[in-house]
Order: sequence, then C-alpha cells, then structure tokens
Amino acid sequence: MALAIAESERVRGTTSPNPPVGCVILDATGKPVGFGATQPPGGKHAEKMALHDAGDRAHGGTAYVTLEPCSHWGRTPPCTDALLEAGVKRVVYAVSDPNPQAAGGAEILRKAGLDVEVGVLAEAVGKGPLRAWLHYARTGRPHVTWKYAASLDGRVAAKDGTSRWISSEASRREVHDLRTKIDAIVVGTGTVRADDPALTARDADGMPLARQPLPVIVGTSEIPPAAKLKTTALHLRTRDPDVVLSELAGRGVVDVLLEGGPTLAGAFLERGRIDRVVAYVAPVLLGAGPEALKDAGVSTITDAVRLDVEEVTMSGADMRISAVPQRRNGVHRDR
Amino acid sequence: MALAIAESERVRGTTSPNPPVGCVILDATGKPVGFGATQPPGGKHAEKMALHDAGDRAHGGTAYVTLEPCSHWGRTPPCTDALLEAGVKRVVYAVSDPNPQAAGGAEILRKAGLDVEVGVLAEAVGKGPLRAWLHYARTGRPHVTWKYAASLDGRVAAKDGTSRWISSEASRREVHDLRTKIDAIVVGTGTVRADDPALTARDADGMPLARQPLPVIVGTSEIPPAAKLKTTALHLRTRDPDVVLSELAGRGVVDVLLEGGPTLAGAFLERGRIDRVVAYVAPVLLGAGPEALKDAGVSTITDAVRLDVEEVTMSGADMRISAVPQRRNGVHRDR
Repeated sequence: MALAIAESERVRGTTSPNPPVGCVILDATGKPVGFGATQPPGGKHAEKMALHDAGDRAHGGTAYVTLEPCSHWGRTPPCTDALLEAGVKRVVYAVSDPNPQAAGGAEILRKAGLDVEVGVLAEAVGKGPLRAWLHYARTGRPHVTWKYAASLDGRVAAKDGTSRWISSEASRREVHDLRTKIDAIVVGTGTVRADDPALTARDADGMPLARQPLPVIVGTSEIPPAAKLKTTALHLRTRDPDVVLSELAGRGVVDVLLEGGPTLAGAFLERGRIDRVVAYVAPVLLGAGPEALKDAGVSTITDAVRLDVEEVTMSGADMRISAVPQRRNGVHRDR
Repeated sequence: MALAIAESERVRGTTSPNPPVGCVILDATGKPVGFGATQPPGGKHAEKMALHDAGDRAHGGTAYVTLEPCSHWGRTPPCTDALLEAGVKRVVYAVSDPNPQAAGGAEILRKAGLDVEVGVLAEAVGKGPLRAWLHYARTGRPHVTWKYAASLDGRVAAKDGTSRWISSEASRREVHDLRTKIDAIVVGTGTVRADDPALTARDADGMPLARQPLPVIVGTSEIPPAAKLKTTALHLRTRDPDVVLSELAGRGVVDVLLEGGPTLAGAFLERGRIDRVVAYVAPVLLGAGPEALKDAGVSTITDAVRLDVEEVTMSGADMRISAVPQRRNGVHRDR
C-alpha cells in the first residue's frame, strides 16, 4: 500500500475533479509487477494503468489500491470489471468511496468471489493524497488549505509592508512544492495590490515548474492593469467564500490553497470554510505590521476558533504547524 | 555532574545574588557520599554543604561542582580552602567563574596538587541553572526572560479583552513552576489595569507555593487602589528598561521574568534587554484583539529581531518555543 500511495503522490494535482489514486499489482507469488496512478480527466484510472503494466502476470495476483475500485460507468468503464477480467484474486484498498454513484465496488468484487480487504493505511491515505478529494466527495466543496507565513508575534509584514523574507528559504521551497500539487491558489485583491504576486510554482532557480495551479483573485476591487496576475488569473468579483468555492467546484477544482490576505482568510474562517491551516512561524519578532488574520467573527475568548494540531515540524529555522479547525455541534461553524 | 545539576535545581530562586550551585562529593572508591547546594545569601556555598555531608569520606575523593570553586573571602571563606582541608584529590567543574574577584579557584587547586577538570556538562549548566547568574556576572544586568502566551495568530486576548484561557492548563502550570524559580516578575501598569494579576506562584489547587518571586510594576501611571498588586508589588515609576534593571540589580535580583504587556515587551526588546523569549503558542485563532508585541522599534523587514530557537516542545496542546534574540555586531541591539 505504501507503494500505491507513492504512485498516487506522483499524479497529485493532475487528476481533479477525479481522485489521485495509486495502484500496485502483485503477481501470484507476491511480487510487485504493475504500477499505476489516475490519469488526467478522461484518461485511465489507477487500476487499469497498473493492470496494463502487469499484463498476464496479474492473473491470480493481488491489487493494492488507495481507494475502493469504482463500479460505475463514468467517462471510463468500471474498474471492478477490469480487475475481474484480469483474473485478480484479492483486492486490498485503503479508503471506501464516499460517492454513492461510484461505491459498491467492494461488494461486486466480493460477490464475484474475490478476497477483499479494506482499511490498510487508511489514515495515511485519507490525510494524505486523497484528503482533498474525500472532502470534496463528502461536501461538494473544494478542500481549502489556508497557508500563511508569519513572525512569532503573528505578523505577515513589517510596519512599512516589507515581508521579503520573513520565512526561511526551506519554507518558501516547500510552498512552491505544495503549489504544484493543488488545483487553485486563491488570494484577495488586497494581496494583489500590496504584493503583486505571480502565484506560480517555481523551482530553486526561480524557473516555472511543469504543473501550475489556477491563480484566482477574489474581491470586488479592480486589479491594477500592470499586475502580474491581470492576464493569468481568474477574477471572481465576490467576497462570499461559498460563491468562490461553488464557482471553483464548477471548474473541477478540488484542492484549494488560500494564500491571503488576512481579511480574506478571516472571511473563510468565519464561514467555516477553512479545512486545514498550514502556518510557517518564523523565529522573528516585528512588533508592528499587518497581522496574519483579521475579522474572523470572534469577539470573545469562548468564540475562539480552536484547532487540532496534526503536525509540528521544522522547516529550516521556521516551525511548520499543520492544524484543523474544530467543528462545532457536528457542523464546523456553519451557518 | 548530573547529580550536581539536580542539587542546584533544588535551590533555584533562593540564592540570588549568589549563583545556585550544586556539588556532589565522591569518596576514594567513586561512591557519592555528599550532596550540597548553595544556601540563601550569607549561608554556606554548595561545596561546603556537600563536604559537611560527606565528612571524613571526602578524603582522597572527588568533588563535582557546577561552577568553579570560589577563591575569595566574601561573606564566607573561600571554597578552595574547604576542598583542600577536606583532602579532596580531584575537582571536576562545569563552567568557569566569569567574576574576576572569585575566579582563579582552579589555579589555586592545581597549584596545591589537585587534579582539576573543567567543562563537563558545561552547556547544560550554562543554559540551565546558572544561565541567569552567568549573564548577570558578565553584564551586571539581571537576565530577562520574556514569557507570553498567544494565539497562533499572535494575539494575547480576544477583541473584548478576555483571555482566560488561551493557553492550555499544562502551560499555565509550567508558568507557575517557572515563577518559583525566578527572583522577580515584571509587568507594566497597563497589564495591572487590564488583568489585575496577583503574580503569585500557585500550585494545581491555586494555593500559593512556599517560594514567591518579587512582583514588580513598571510605568508612570498610577495603580488602581483596589489592585491585587497595590500592596505587594514594587512600583518602579519609569519606562526605561535599563533603569528598571539597574534598580532590580541593586536589590539582588538576578533572574527576571517579564510577563507583559506588549508595549513593555517592545521597549525591552528594542533596548536589547530581552535575553530569552519563552512563547506559549496555542492552537487557537482570534483574528482580533491585542497583539503579543508592540512598538519594538522595527519599521522594515531588514530590522526584524531574529531569534535563535533553542527548543520547541509541546505543552499540552500548546507549542512552547524557547529562543534567544540574535546579537548584532557583537552587541545585542545595544545603544
């Protein structure tokens, strides 16, 4: 399954609105003979790629898949058919398909006499490569990661607006890697005016990487004609997070990176539309300058948005904190 | 030496302006036979306590001490004399005495024919029990630890001023433990008006602990007559960090805990008078409310106060970050 996860990681950011699935086929003796991952929309699913790679050696073997094999005709025939045709005897998958249309694959395989096992490395898959897609499949909304880099005292720039660089080079490299794995980057018009970002994913030499996310500007203000994003970005003239997410879902966006600014992040947080926070906290003190977060609808301490910390790691000299806002009464600050 | 450090930890906060030193005597066979630590000012030093505990068994043995044995007559006779009289053959110590008046102990012992070794666990001692005193011995100023608890977005209270509780119970317990080990707690008049703190060290049941630090209020504003600190605290009517530290040094204070607020912390930081930052960062987002730090004299990013992170640990759900401001041109933002 670890190999199947690695396969899926290689296609992250290229499959939406389909899930980035990985599959490894073992032959009857347990030797890995076929590897595959989801192709871009309209292309083959992971199972078919891996079965094709394995050829006849799949007969009597085992398929490890990160997601329950689909049982429906979408743009491609069901994967359950392909597994049965190839003569696989056993199927092991990590997480079940929450999509009622596609689910039932396990049942079909069991009825056909295959040995089916579920739940292997489910958490690694569910919090890893399939995290955004599972959220999207369950809620109909893209998964939103709010990423920011701030000083230890919570500021994203100095008093005069300068911010290059608060965070370490290692953190900035990580952000570019993250950008290649998501579908869209969202910023507010304020960030465009203040920073004039390109929002591209670049390598260590500053050269654009092969896979680029969709840049999205949110807000009713105009963008300066000379802004780098003027011709490249989608400008959604709204301040409503749900309108933004609905528009993006309509364009096949599943995984969103919210990069700023403080007011836009506050609006998303207040509406319960931030699914993960990734904070790069630099060992720097500023004492003045814009805060990382504004206007999240919290007026007193009991209304504070509390987070469950998933992971704290070091990124160069910075601390990288990954956390998930707690839901309230089953619904995460929903209105 | 680890045993000697443990001895010294037991007297932290009771010895200033003398250093909290620990000593362990091994007999001629290497067995620990005497334990001791510095007594309150005017009392015996660690070596004498441990030698007294060991009695005749010290003869031909080894003394482990966290600090170089003193060679001068202060309020007590030199420890070097006591070690020689007891017939100790070997002395191992962690850090040298930076005080020119007291130093030279090692040389005296060597000349008397003893085997003397230095540097064992020097970092653990220098960053641990003797940290504040070594700073004081080198600079003449008390060591200042700025401690604060803030949300992930750098705020110490919500919009309406409520702050109970941003940090976890584990963090609040740690702070009370810290308070019993330092000499003085410093807050500004603004904190007194906003929070009316008692600044006492309390146990888990809220009962005062045996050893209490000196509470100090800094600032020119008046204190409300009903404030808890009105009768207990020393009120220094100045805003100048160096005047505050000089006043405290004159009262035998070596180890200071600066607990707030943001403006006072900014003034100390700008003057280069914060020697360590201990930040409890809670997994909480507020989006409004007072910031942890204000007015530290930083106007642009290149002037940011950069920190060397010593340690990142978890304290309940909070992250505890211990860091030291970097010095510039050898002098730490000094003027």
